[in-house]
Amino acid sequence: MEAINKTNSFILYGNTSPNVYKIKLFFEELSKIGVTYEYRSIDITKWEQYSDDFKKINPNKKIPAIIDNTLEKPHTVFESGSILIYLAQKYKKFLPDFQTNPIENSDVITWTIWQVANLGPIFGQFTHFYKFSPKVEEYPLQRFHKDTQRILRVLDNRLAVSKYIGSDEYSIADISSAGWLLYLSLIPLYDCTRESHKNIYRWLDLLGERESVKKILADIQESFKSFNFHGIRAIFTNDPELIKLNAPLGIENVKLQFP
Amino acid sequence: MEAINKTNSFILYGNTSPNVYKIKLFFEELSKIGVTYEYRSIDITKWEQYSDDFKKINPNKKIPAIIDNTLEKPHTVFESGSILIYLAQKYKKFLPDFQTNPIENSDVITWTIWQVANLGPIFGQFTHFYKFSPKVEEYPLQRFHKDTQRILRVLDNRLAVSKYIGSDEYSIADISSAGWLLYLSLIPLYDCTRESHKNIYRWLDLLGERESVKKILADIQESFKSFNFHGIRAIFTNDPELIKLNAPLGIENVKLQFP
Repeated sequence: MEAINKTNSFILYGNTSPNVYKIKLFFEELSKIGVTYEYRSIDITKWEQYSDDFKKINPNKKIPAIIDNTLEKPHTVFESGSILIYLAQKYKKFLPDFQTNPIENSDVITWTIWQVANLGPIFGQFTHFYKFSPKVEEYPLQRFHKDTQRILRVLDNRLAVSKYIGSDEYSIADISSAGWLLYLSLIPLYDCTRESHKNIYRWLDLLGERESVKKILADIQESFKSFNFHGIRAIFTNDPELIKLNAPLGIENVKLQFP
Repeated sequence: MEAINKTNSFILYGNTSPNVYKIKLFFEELSKIGVTYEYRSIDITKWEQYSDDFKKINPNKKIPAIIDNTLEKPHTVFESGSILIYLAQKYKKFLPDFQTNPIENSDVITWTIWQVANLGPIFGQFTHFYKFSPKVEEYPLQRFHKDTQRILRVLDNRLAVSKYIGSDEYSIADISSAGWLLYLSLIPLYDCTRESHKNIYRWLDLLGERESVKKILADIQESFKSFNFHGIRAIFTNDPELIKLNAPLGIENVKLQFP
Protein backbone atom coordinates (compact mmCIF):
# COMPACT_ATOMS: atom_id res chain seq x y z
CA MET A 1 0.00 0.00 0.00
CA GLU A 2 1.37 3.35 -0.99
CA ALA A 3 2.03 6.06 1.51
CA ILE A 4 -0.47 8.88 1.54
CA ASN A 5 0.73 11.65 -0.73
CA LYS A 6 1.96 14.38 1.63
CA THR A 7 0.90 17.90 0.80
CA ASN A 8 3.26 20.78 1.44
CA SER A 9 2.12 23.37 3.98
CA PHE A 10 2.37 26.18 1.41
CA ILE A 11 2.69 26.93 -2.28
CA LEU A 12 4.98 29.86 -3.17
CA TYR A 13 4.61 31.48 -6.59
CA GLY A 14 7.78 33.33 -7.48
CA ASN A 15 10.82 33.93 -9.59
CA THR A 16 14.41 34.99 -8.92
CA SER A 17 13.63 38.48 -7.66
CA PRO A 18 14.11 40.38 -4.40
CA ASN A 19 10.53 40.29 -3.15
CA VAL A 20 10.45 36.51 -3.59
CA TYR A 21 13.70 36.01 -1.67
CA LYS A 22 12.05 37.67 1.33
CA ILE A 23 9.50 34.88 1.47
CA LYS A 24 12.10 32.16 0.89
CA LEU A 25 14.14 33.59 3.79
CA PHE A 26 11.14 33.21 6.08
CA PHE A 27 10.28 29.72 4.81
CA GLU A 28 13.89 28.61 5.39
CA GLU A 29 13.50 29.60 9.04
CA LEU A 30 10.16 27.76 9.24
CA SER A 31 11.66 24.59 7.76
CA LYS A 32 13.23 23.99 11.19
CA ILE A 33 9.76 23.44 12.62
CA GLY A 34 8.60 21.22 9.76
CA VAL A 35 6.85 23.77 7.59
CA THR A 36 7.30 22.87 3.91
CA TYR A 37 6.53 24.62 0.66
CA GLU A 38 6.24 23.84 -3.00
CA TYR A 39 7.82 26.42 -5.27
CA ARG A 40 6.05 27.30 -8.53
CA SER A 41 7.97 29.46 -10.97
CA ILE A 42 6.19 32.35 -12.70
CA ASP A 43 8.19 33.51 -15.73
CA ILE A 44 7.52 37.22 -16.25
CA THR A 45 9.41 37.17 -19.58
CA LYS A 46 6.63 34.87 -20.79
CA TRP A 47 3.96 37.08 -19.19
CA GLU A 48 2.84 34.16 -16.99
CA GLN A 49 1.75 36.56 -14.23
CA TYR A 50 -1.06 37.73 -16.52
CA SER A 51 -2.60 34.28 -16.98
CA ASP A 52 -6.20 33.78 -15.91
CA ASP A 53 -5.07 31.13 -13.41
CA PHE A 54 -2.57 33.42 -11.73
CA LYS A 55 -4.91 36.39 -11.71
CA LYS A 56 -7.21 34.33 -9.46
CA ILE A 57 -4.32 33.95 -7.01
CA ASN A 58 -3.12 37.54 -7.20
CA PRO A 59 -5.47 40.09 -8.79
CA ASN A 60 -2.51 42.52 -8.76
CA LYS A 61 -0.67 40.11 -11.13
CA LYS A 62 2.70 40.27 -9.40
CA ILE A 63 4.85 37.83 -7.52
CA PRO A 64 5.28 36.66 -4.80
CA ALA A 65 2.01 35.11 -3.71
CA ILE A 66 1.42 32.16 -1.37
CA ILE A 67 -1.34 29.68 -0.72
CA ASP A 68 -1.64 28.41 2.85
CA ASN A 69 -2.67 24.76 2.55
CA THR A 70 -2.62 24.09 6.30
CA LEU A 71 -6.16 25.44 6.64
CA GLU A 72 -9.37 23.59 5.87
CA LYS A 73 -10.01 26.17 3.15
CA PRO A 74 -6.70 27.22 1.53
CA HIS A 75 -5.94 30.92 1.97
CA THR A 76 -4.11 33.11 -0.55
CA VAL A 77 -1.88 36.01 0.44
CA PHE A 78 -0.09 38.41 -1.91
CA GLU A 79 2.19 41.45 -1.44
CA SER A 80 5.50 40.39 0.11
CA GLY A 81 5.00 42.66 3.14
CA SER A 82 1.60 41.13 3.85
CA ILE A 83 2.96 37.59 3.46
CA LEU A 84 5.71 38.34 6.00
CA ILE A 85 3.19 39.74 8.50
CA TYR A 86 0.90 36.74 7.93
CA LEU A 87 3.64 34.16 8.52
CA ALA A 88 4.94 36.15 11.51
CA GLN A 89 1.53 36.23 13.17
CA LYS A 90 0.72 32.61 12.33
CA TYR A 91 3.98 31.16 13.66
CA LYS A 92 4.67 33.86 16.29
CA LYS A 93 8.13 34.51 14.87
CA PHE A 94 10.05 37.66 13.93
CA LEU A 95 7.30 40.08 15.00
CA PRO A 96 6.79 40.92 18.69
CA ASP A 97 3.18 40.57 19.83
CA PHE A 98 1.29 43.86 20.04
CA GLN A 99 -0.53 42.94 23.25
CA THR A 100 2.64 42.29 25.23
CA ASN A 101 5.19 44.41 23.30
CA PRO A 102 3.38 47.22 21.49
CA ILE A 103 6.44 49.43 20.99
CA GLU A 104 8.61 46.64 19.55
CA ASN A 105 5.70 45.46 17.39
CA SER A 106 5.21 49.00 16.10
CA ASP A 107 8.90 49.55 15.33
CA VAL A 108 9.14 46.28 13.41
CA ILE A 109 5.97 47.05 11.45
CA THR A 110 7.22 50.59 10.73
CA TRP A 111 10.52 49.44 9.24
CA THR A 112 8.83 46.61 7.35
CA ILE A 113 6.38 49.07 5.79
CA TRP A 114 9.23 51.52 5.21
CA GLN A 115 10.87 48.84 3.07
CA VAL A 116 7.78 48.02 0.99
CA ALA A 117 6.77 51.67 0.52
CA ASN A 118 10.22 53.25 0.01
CA LEU A 119 13.19 50.95 -0.57
CA GLY A 120 11.31 48.45 -2.74
CA PRO A 121 9.47 50.83 -5.11
CA ILE A 122 12.42 53.22 -5.48
CA PHE A 123 15.08 50.50 -5.95
CA GLY A 124 12.70 48.88 -8.45
CA GLN A 125 12.35 52.10 -10.47
CA PHE A 126 16.09 52.78 -10.31
CA THR A 127 16.79 49.26 -11.58
CA HIS A 128 14.37 49.82 -14.45
CA PHE A 129 15.98 53.08 -15.56
CA TYR A 130 19.54 51.85 -14.96
CA LYS A 131 19.20 48.46 -16.66
CA PHE A 132 15.96 47.90 -18.52
CA SER A 133 14.64 51.08 -20.13
CA PRO A 134 15.38 50.97 -23.89
CA LYS A 135 17.25 54.29 -23.92
CA VAL A 136 18.69 56.52 -21.21
CA GLU A 137 16.05 58.69 -19.58
CA GLU A 138 18.31 61.15 -17.81
CA TYR A 139 15.81 62.93 -15.54
CA PRO A 140 14.13 59.84 -13.98
CA LEU A 141 17.46 57.99 -13.85
CA GLN A 142 18.97 60.77 -11.74
CA ARG A 143 15.74 61.15 -9.72
CA PHE A 144 15.63 57.49 -8.70
CA HIS A 145 19.39 57.23 -8.22
CA LYS A 146 19.33 60.13 -5.77
CA ASP A 147 16.38 58.62 -3.90
CA THR A 148 18.13 55.23 -3.79
CA GLN A 149 21.13 56.93 -2.22
CA ARG A 150 18.92 58.80 0.25
CA ILE A 151 17.24 55.55 1.30
CA LEU A 152 20.55 53.74 1.79
CA ARG A 153 21.70 56.61 4.02
CA VAL A 154 18.50 56.40 6.09
CA LEU A 155 19.10 52.67 6.57
CA ASP A 156 22.79 53.08 7.38
CA ASN A 157 21.90 55.70 10.00
CA ARG A 158 19.26 53.39 11.46
CA LEU A 159 21.75 50.55 11.73
CA ALA A 160 24.19 52.88 13.51
CA VAL A 161 21.79 52.97 16.48
CA SER A 162 19.99 49.61 16.26
CA LYS A 163 21.49 46.12 16.09
CA TYR A 164 18.85 44.95 13.61
CA ILE A 165 16.56 47.15 11.49
CA GLY A 166 13.36 46.90 13.52
CA SER A 167 14.79 46.34 16.99
CA ASP A 168 17.57 44.47 18.77
CA GLU A 169 16.20 41.17 17.47
CA TYR A 170 16.07 39.69 13.97
CA SER A 171 12.60 40.40 12.56
CA ILE A 172 10.52 40.72 9.40
CA ALA A 173 11.95 44.26 9.07
CA ASP A 174 15.34 42.62 8.41
CA ILE A 175 13.90 39.96 6.13
CA SER A 176 12.12 42.66 4.14
CA SER A 177 15.26 44.69 3.42
CA ALA A 178 17.45 41.58 3.11
CA GLY A 179 15.49 40.47 0.04
CA TRP A 180 16.93 43.50 -1.77
CA LEU A 181 20.25 43.99 0.01
CA LEU A 182 21.69 40.47 0.23
CA TYR A 183 22.74 41.06 -3.39
CA LEU A 184 25.34 43.48 -1.97
CA SER A 185 27.15 40.48 -0.47
CA LEU A 186 27.69 39.11 -3.98
CA ILE A 187 28.01 41.97 -6.46
CA PRO A 188 28.72 45.73 -6.34
CA LEU A 189 25.44 47.65 -6.50
CA TYR A 190 23.95 51.07 -5.80
CA ASP A 191 27.33 52.71 -5.03
CA CYS A 192 26.95 51.07 -1.62
CA THR A 193 30.25 49.74 -0.30
CA ARG A 194 31.74 48.46 2.93
CA GLU A 195 33.47 51.85 3.22
CA SER A 196 30.55 54.15 2.39
CA HIS A 197 27.87 52.24 4.35
CA LYS A 198 29.65 50.46 7.17
CA ASN A 199 26.55 49.87 9.27
CA ILE A 200 24.70 48.19 6.44
CA TYR A 201 27.67 45.84 5.94
CA ARG A 202 27.94 45.20 9.69
CA TRP A 203 24.28 44.11 9.49
CA LEU A 204 24.87 42.01 6.36
CA ASP A 205 27.73 40.23 8.15
CA LEU A 206 25.45 39.56 11.11
CA LEU A 207 22.72 38.19 8.86
CA GLY A 208 25.29 36.07 7.04
CA GLU A 209 25.72 33.99 10.19
CA ARG A 210 22.18 32.60 9.86
CA GLU A 211 21.74 29.27 8.07
CA SER A 212 18.64 30.58 6.28
CA VAL A 213 20.60 33.51 4.87
CA LYS A 214 23.50 31.30 3.75
CA LYS A 215 21.03 29.11 1.90
CA ILE A 216 19.34 32.04 0.13
CA LEU A 217 22.68 33.67 -0.73
CA ALA A 218 23.61 30.43 -2.50
CA ASP A 219 20.22 30.50 -4.26
CA ILE A 220 20.82 34.06 -5.48
CA GLN A 221 24.34 33.19 -6.67
CA GLU A 222 22.95 30.19 -8.56
CA SER A 223 20.19 32.31 -10.12
CA PHE A 224 22.75 34.57 -11.81
CA LYS A 225 23.67 31.69 -14.14
CA SER A 226 20.22 31.51 -15.71
CA PHE A 227 19.05 35.10 -15.28
CA ASN A 228 17.22 36.12 -18.47
CA PHE A 229 18.47 39.72 -18.68
CA HIS A 230 17.56 40.32 -22.32
CA GLY A 231 14.20 38.64 -21.81
CA ILE A 232 13.42 41.37 -19.30
CA ARG A 233 14.66 44.11 -21.64
CA ALA A 234 12.33 42.65 -24.28
CA ILE A 235 9.37 43.44 -22.04
CA PHE A 236 10.02 47.11 -22.66
CA THR A 237 10.96 47.28 -26.34
CA ASN A 238 10.40 45.42 -29.60
CA ASP A 239 13.67 46.67 -31.12
CA PRO A 240 16.08 43.71 -31.39
CA GLU A 241 19.07 46.06 -31.30
CA LEU A 242 17.94 47.60 -28.01
CA ILE A 243 17.02 44.22 -26.52
CA LYS A 244 20.54 42.87 -26.94
CA LEU A 245 22.20 45.77 -25.08
CA ASN A 246 23.40 45.31 -21.50
CA ALA A 247 22.05 48.68 -20.37
CA PRO A 248 19.96 51.53 -21.79
CA LEU A 249 21.39 53.03 -24.98
CA GLY A 250 23.71 55.89 -23.97
CA ILE A 251 24.25 54.91 -20.33
CA GLU A 252 28.02 55.25 -20.79
CA ASN A 253 27.57 59.03 -21.10
CA VAL A 254 25.69 59.39 -17.81
CA LYS A 255 27.36 60.60 -14.63
CA LEU A 256 25.07 59.67 -11.76
CA GLN A 257 24.40 62.47 -9.30
CA PHE A 258 24.28 62.10 -5.53
CA PRO A 259 21.84 63.92 -3.25
CA MET B 1 -7.46 77.67 40.42
CA GLU B 2 -6.76 76.92 36.81
CA ALA B 3 -7.79 73.69 35.22
CA ILE B 4 -4.97 71.29 34.57
CA ASN B 5 -3.66 71.81 31.06
CA LYS B 6 -5.00 68.87 29.10
CA THR B 7 -2.58 67.18 26.78
CA ASN B 8 -3.85 65.76 23.52
CA SER B 9 -3.57 62.00 23.11
CA PHE B 10 -1.45 62.37 19.94
CA ILE B 11 0.57 64.82 17.89
CA LEU B 12 0.18 64.49 14.11
CA TYR B 13 2.85 66.00 11.86
CA GLY B 14 1.47 66.57 8.41
CA ASN B 15 0.44 68.76 5.51
CA THR B 16 -2.37 68.74 2.97
CA SER B 17 -1.39 65.52 1.21
CA PRO B 18 -2.99 62.09 0.67
CA ASN B 19 -0.92 60.12 3.17
CA VAL B 20 -1.78 62.62 5.90
CA TYR B 21 -5.52 62.47 5.17
CA LYS B 22 -5.39 58.72 5.90
CA ILE B 23 -4.36 59.47 9.47
CA LYS B 24 -6.88 62.29 9.87
CA LEU B 25 -9.61 59.89 8.68
CA PHE B 26 -8.68 57.47 11.46
CA PHE B 27 -8.39 60.20 14.11
CA GLU B 28 -11.85 61.51 13.16
CA GLU B 29 -13.26 58.06 13.92
CA LEU B 30 -11.36 57.96 17.22
CA SER B 31 -12.67 61.38 18.25
CA LYS B 32 -15.98 59.63 19.05
CA ILE B 33 -14.25 57.81 21.92
CA GLY B 34 -12.45 60.89 23.20
CA VAL B 35 -9.10 60.50 21.47
CA THR B 36 -7.70 63.93 20.59
CA TYR B 37 -4.75 65.12 18.56
CA GLU B 38 -2.73 68.24 18.00
CA TYR B 39 -1.91 68.94 14.36
CA ARG B 40 1.52 70.34 13.54
CA SER B 41 2.05 71.50 9.98
CA ILE B 42 5.27 70.60 8.17
CA ASP B 43 5.76 72.82 5.10
CA ILE B 44 7.69 70.85 2.50
CA THR B 45 8.06 73.97 0.31
CA LYS B 46 10.18 75.37 3.16
CA TRP B 47 12.04 72.05 3.53
CA GLU B 48 10.81 71.74 7.14
CA GLN B 49 10.85 67.93 6.91
CA TYR B 50 14.66 68.11 6.75
CA SER B 51 15.05 69.99 10.06
CA ASP B 52 17.08 68.37 12.82
CA ASP B 53 14.02 68.37 15.07
CA PHE B 54 11.85 66.55 12.55
CA LYS B 55 14.57 64.08 11.62
CA LYS B 56 14.45 62.88 15.25
CA ILE B 57 10.75 62.14 14.81
CA ASN B 58 11.03 60.56 11.36
CA PRO B 59 14.53 59.57 10.19
CA ASN B 60 12.97 59.03 6.73
CA LYS B 61 12.10 62.79 6.67
CA LYS B 62 8.59 62.42 5.31
CA ILE B 63 5.14 63.10 6.63
CA PRO B 64 2.95 61.86 8.23
CA ALA B 65 4.39 60.92 11.61
CA ILE B 66 2.64 60.70 14.98
CA ILE B 67 3.66 60.81 18.60
CA ASP B 68 1.52 58.77 21.01
CA ASN B 69 1.37 60.80 24.21
CA THR B 70 -0.96 58.38 26.02
CA LEU B 71 2.01 56.26 27.09
CA GLU B 72 4.36 56.91 30.00
CA LYS B 73 7.16 57.27 27.44
CA PRO B 74 5.82 58.89 24.24
CA HIS B 75 6.13 56.65 21.19
CA THR B 76 6.77 57.82 17.62
CA VAL B 77 5.40 56.08 14.55
CA PHE B 78 6.03 57.01 10.91
CA GLU B 79 4.95 55.60 7.54
CA SER B 80 1.20 56.06 7.05
CA GLY B 81 0.62 52.30 6.70
CA SER B 82 2.38 51.61 9.99
CA ILE B 83 0.45 54.39 11.76
CA LEU B 84 -2.85 52.87 10.57
CA ILE B 85 -1.85 49.40 11.81
CA TYR B 86 -0.69 50.88 15.13
CA LEU B 87 -3.93 52.77 15.76
CA ALA B 88 -5.98 49.77 14.61
CA GLN B 89 -4.23 47.42 17.03
CA LYS B 90 -4.25 49.92 19.91
CA TYR B 91 -7.95 50.75 19.65
CA LYS B 92 -9.11 47.41 18.18
CA LYS B 93 -10.80 49.17 15.28
CA PHE B 94 -10.81 48.64 11.50
CA LEU B 95 -8.52 45.58 11.58
CA PRO B 96 -9.91 42.14 12.55
CA ASP B 97 -7.85 40.40 15.22
CA PHE B 98 -5.50 37.73 13.86
CA GLN B 99 -6.16 35.29 16.71
CA THR B 100 -9.90 35.15 16.15
CA ASN B 101 -10.16 36.17 12.46
CA PRO B 102 -6.88 35.32 10.70
CA ILE B 103 -8.29 35.37 7.16
CA GLU B 104 -10.03 38.71 7.56
CA ASN B 105 -6.96 40.15 9.27
CA SER B 106 -4.78 38.91 6.43
CA ASP B 107 -7.03 40.31 3.69
CA VAL B 108 -7.17 43.73 5.34
CA ILE B 109 -3.38 43.78 5.82
CA THR B 110 -2.86 42.65 2.21
CA TRP B 111 -4.94 45.46 0.71
CA THR B 112 -3.46 48.01 3.10
CA ILE B 113 0.06 46.99 2.05
CA TRP B 114 -1.08 46.89 -1.58
CA GLN B 115 -1.98 50.56 -1.23
CA VAL B 116 1.31 51.67 0.36
CA ALA B 117 3.48 49.57 -1.99
CA ASN B 118 1.58 50.10 -5.28
CA LEU B 119 -1.12 52.77 -5.41
CA GLY B 120 0.76 55.30 -3.24
CA PRO B 121 4.23 55.13 -4.86
CA ILE B 122 2.88 54.93 -8.43
CA PHE B 123 0.26 57.68 -8.03
CA GLY B 124 2.99 59.77 -6.38
CA GLN B 125 5.35 59.32 -9.32
CA PHE B 126 2.58 59.95 -11.85
CA THR B 127 1.65 63.17 -10.04
CA HIS B 128 5.29 64.25 -10.14
CA PHE B 129 5.66 63.69 -13.88
CA TYR B 130 2.19 65.05 -14.72
CA LYS B 131 2.34 68.18 -12.59
CA PHE B 132 5.72 68.93 -11.05
CA SER B 133 8.61 67.88 -13.27
CA PRO B 134 10.07 71.01 -14.95
CA LYS B 135 9.66 69.67 -18.48
CA VAL B 136 7.74 66.78 -20.00
CA GLU B 137 9.56 63.48 -19.58
CA GLU B 138 7.58 61.41 -22.05
CA TYR B 139 8.81 57.89 -21.19
CA PRO B 140 8.30 58.00 -17.38
CA LEU B 141 5.09 60.01 -17.78
CA GLN B 142 3.60 57.27 -19.96
CA ARG B 143 5.10 54.54 -17.75
CA PHE B 144 3.49 55.85 -14.56
CA HIS B 145 0.23 56.81 -16.28
CA LYS B 146 -0.18 53.27 -17.56
CA ASP B 147 0.59 51.82 -14.14
CA THR B 148 -1.86 54.25 -12.51
CA GLN B 149 -4.53 52.99 -14.90
CA ARG B 150 -3.59 49.36 -14.20
CA ILE B 151 -3.88 49.94 -10.44
CA LEU B 152 -7.28 51.64 -10.74
CA ARG B 153 -8.50 48.66 -12.75
CA VAL B 154 -7.25 46.23 -10.07
CA LEU B 155 -9.12 48.23 -7.43
CA ASP B 156 -12.30 48.52 -9.50
CA ASN B 157 -12.25 44.74 -10.04
CA ARG B 158 -11.74 44.18 -6.32
CA LEU B 159 -14.69 46.39 -5.47
CA ALA B 160 -16.85 44.45 -7.93
CA VAL B 161 -16.60 41.42 -5.63
CA SER B 162 -16.10 42.98 -2.18
CA LYS B 163 -18.25 45.60 -0.44
CA TYR B 164 -15.20 47.33 1.02
CA ILE B 165 -11.58 46.95 -0.12
CA GLY B 166 -10.29 44.59 2.56
CA SER B 167 -13.49 42.73 3.43
CA ASP B 168 -17.22 43.34 3.94
CA GLU B 169 -16.46 45.81 6.71
CA TYR B 170 -14.87 49.27 6.65
CA SER B 171 -11.18 48.86 7.54
CA ILE B 172 -7.73 50.41 7.33
CA ALA B 173 -7.55 49.05 3.76
CA ASP B 174 -10.31 51.52 2.86
CA ILE B 175 -8.76 54.35 4.86
CA SER B 176 -5.45 53.74 3.11
CA SER B 177 -6.85 54.06 -0.42
CA ALA B 178 -9.33 56.78 0.59
CA GLY B 179 -6.47 59.13 1.43
CA TRP B 180 -5.66 59.17 -2.28
CA LEU B 181 -9.06 58.57 -3.88
CA LEU B 182 -11.38 60.89 -1.94
CA TYR B 183 -10.01 63.60 -4.25
CA LEU B 184 -12.06 61.91 -7.00
CA SER B 185 -15.21 63.08 -5.22
CA LEU B 186 -14.12 66.68 -5.74
CA ILE B 187 -12.11 66.99 -8.96
CA PRO B 188 -11.57 64.93 -12.13
CA LEU B 189 -8.35 62.93 -11.84
CA TYR B 190 -6.52 59.96 -13.32
CA ASP B 191 -9.06 59.47 -16.16
CA CYS B 192 -11.16 57.73 -13.50
CA THR B 193 -14.86 58.54 -13.86
CA ARG B 194 -18.19 57.28 -12.57
CA GLU B 195 -18.65 55.65 -15.98
CA SER B 196 -15.22 54.04 -16.38
CA HIS B 197 -14.81 52.85 -12.76
CA LYS B 198 -18.30 52.32 -11.41
CA ASN B 199 -17.25 50.11 -8.50
CA ILE B 200 -14.75 52.67 -7.19
CA TYR B 201 -17.50 55.31 -7.27
CA ARG B 202 -19.99 52.94 -5.59
CA TRP B 203 -17.39 52.60 -2.82
CA LEU B 204 -16.75 56.37 -2.68
CA ASP B 205 -20.51 56.93 -2.29
CA LEU B 206 -20.58 54.38 0.54
CA LEU B 207 -17.64 56.04 2.28
CA GLY B 208 -19.28 59.43 1.81
CA GLU B 209 -22.00 58.40 4.25
CA ARG B 210 -19.49 58.37 7.14
CA GLU B 211 -19.21 61.51 9.26
CA SER B 212 -15.41 61.16 9.35
CA VAL B 213 -15.24 61.11 5.55
CA LYS B 214 -17.56 64.13 5.22
CA LYS B 215 -15.28 66.04 7.58
CA ILE B 216 -12.10 65.15 5.68
CA LEU B 217 -13.70 65.87 2.29
CA ALA B 218 -14.46 69.38 3.60
CA ASP B 219 -10.82 69.62 4.79
CA ILE B 220 -9.52 68.65 1.35
CA GLN B 221 -11.86 71.13 -0.38
CA GLU B 222 -10.67 73.87 1.98
CA SER B 223 -7.00 72.98 1.36
CA PHE B 224 -7.37 73.70 -2.36
CA LYS B 225 -7.67 77.42 -1.53
CA SER B 226 -4.19 77.67 -0.06
CA PHE B 227 -2.41 74.88 -1.96
CA ASN B 228 1.08 76.15 -2.85
CA PHE B 229 1.34 74.58 -6.31
CA HIS B 230 4.22 76.70 -7.57
CA GLY B 231 6.04 76.27 -4.27
CA ILE B 232 6.10 72.54 -4.99
CA ARG B 233 7.28 73.10 -8.58
CA ALA B 234 10.09 75.24 -7.12
CA ILE B 235 11.39 72.16 -5.27
CA PHE B 236 12.35 70.69 -8.64
CA THR B 237 13.71 73.67 -10.59
CA ASN B 238 15.35 77.03 -10.05
CA ASP B 239 14.06 78.45 -13.35
CA PRO B 240 11.41 81.12 -12.54
CA GLU B 241 9.78 80.59 -15.95
CA LEU B 242 9.31 76.87 -15.29
CA ILE B 243 8.16 77.43 -11.70
CA LYS B 244 5.24 79.61 -12.79
CA LEU B 245 3.84 77.02 -15.22
CA ASN B 246 0.79 74.96 -14.26
CA ALA B 247 2.25 71.72 -15.64
CA PRO B 248 5.53 70.50 -17.15
CA LEU B 249 6.64 72.48 -20.20
CA GLY B 250 5.18 70.79 -23.29
CA ILE B 251 2.44 68.76 -21.53
CA GLU B 252 -0.12 70.08 -24.05
CA ASN B 253 1.56 67.97 -26.76
CA VAL B 254 1.31 64.70 -24.82
CA LYS B 255 -1.37 62.14 -25.51
CA LEU B 256 -1.47 59.80 -22.53
CA GLN B 257 -1.44 56.11 -23.39
CA PHE B 258 -3.55 53.46 -21.72
CA PRO B 259 -2.36 49.92 -20.91
